[in-house]
Amino acid sequence: MTNPSAPSAPAPGGVIDLLGLLAYAELVSFFRLADVAGLAPDLVAKGELAGVAATEYRHYRMLHARLEELGADPEAAMEPFVEPLDAWHAGTEPQNWLESLVKIYVGDGIAGDFYRTIADHADAGTAEAVRGAVSESERAEPIAARVRAAVEEDPKLAGPLSLWARRLVGEALSQAQLVAAARPELAGLVARGATGEASGGGEGGGRGDLAAVSRVFAGLTEAHTARLEAMGLSG
Amino acid sequence: MTNPSAPSAPAPGGVIDLLGLLAYAELVSFFRLADVAGLAPDLVAKGELAGVAATEYRHYRMLHARLEELGADPEAAMEPFVEPLDAWHAGTEPQNWLESLVKIYVGDGIAGDFYRTIADHADAGTAEAVRGAVSESERAEPIAARVRAAVEEDPKLAGPLSLWARRLVGEALSQAQLVAAARPELAGLVARGATGEASGGGEGGGRGDLAAVSRVFAGLTEAHTARLEAMGLSG
Repeated sequence: MTNPSAPSAPAPGGVIDLLGLLAYAELVSFFRLADVAGLAPDLVAKGELAGVAATEYRHYRMLHARLEELGADPEAAMEPFVEPLDAWHAGTEPQNWLESLVKIYVGDGIAGDFYRTIADHADAGTAEAVRGAVSESERAEPIAARVRAAVEEDPKLAGPLSLWARRLVGEALSQAQLVAAARPELAGLVARGATGEASGGGEGGGRGDLAAVSRVFAGLTEAHTARLEAMGLSG
Repeated sequence: MTNPSAPSAPAPGGVIDLLGLLAYAELVSFFRLADVAGLAPDLVAKGELAGVAATEYRHYRMLHARLEELGADPEAAMEPFVEPLDAWHAGTEPQNWLESLVKIYVGDGIAGDFYRTIADHADAGTAEAVRGAVSESERAEPIAARVRAAVEEDPKLAGPLSLWARRLVGEALSQAQLVAAARPELAGLVARGATGEASGGGEGGGRGDLAAVSRVFAGLTEAHTARLEAMGLSG
């Protein structure tokens, strides 16, 4: 029980939003990985990417099931996030195989940050539902290793790929700002998660939370830097 | 034990070929489903297609694992089938959502026919490995139901979609003829499977088997007609 103050309260709107956001993110990542597979240099890499995609699908199913358990319409919960996530993907089309790998690793990492942020701050049942995803957070490590090996072999790649990674996270933050402004309950939940406050079932949101969300983004950016290093890149 | 005459014989070359063919077919289907998802009219349909794709991935893993158990290099086993399967996909690009659904259902059905054909005629371990796939053969039924509903709503669709399905199977048969000619051991195994002969570890293949393969194709075409009917189409 991570949320003893309100264990039996109905899930606040922010939780439905967060599950919807993550569910759509996993679903679209799943499909996006296929575009990348066309660029994969060999069958081993194709199989590896298919495995990452299959993991995204399992997460999608898990989040979808949790939404149903909470009595929410899963597709309705995902709908508000279709536009911002599609916009992120459309604005960051990888031009080659290595850019694709960096994008998968960065995107996966940001999702992982969200999972960790909420795992201890949403209601207990939801925390349980996302914990499965968190425990698989190492799944993208082979992808980081591939990028690192390519950069070690050809150090000139580090500069352009670092810039690419910065653009990925920059575009993600600008979409996230729009989402946070439009979905105050979600912003409140994420902000409480990041600042370690116990979550309540209350309304949340508002201008104070937007400032807290900026702190969340700062935390994400820090984690992003660690991920760049894992790929042999720099912030 | 479906093959008591040679339970401990090494897997004949035809079995490695067949596992390689099916493994690559599952992997490429997995990735192809993503193109389709872009055409899906709603999130429910997207999730459904993702589920079919995830099943393809499980089959790929299963076949890949069986190849490793047999001491084969899975990627080398898949390699001879990359060109004909890619050619089939390239020659049958769906132009809309319903054509995509028909293609998934038809392709899935042909794969299922192969699974059933071999499940009782390859070595026992391989038969075991493919049985998992056979037992999931109902997974594409929601796709047939979607096509049927669309055709019931607009009967004018039946003609063009029936033609499309015929083209799909025609292109598959012409690729299969090329494969059968180039891989006599595989042709021999498939032919034995179709005619109910017990498989041996021998060389197989040759001209006689090519005739038997034609009978296999006739059987596949019959099964194809049943699938068309499931979709509300006609041969």
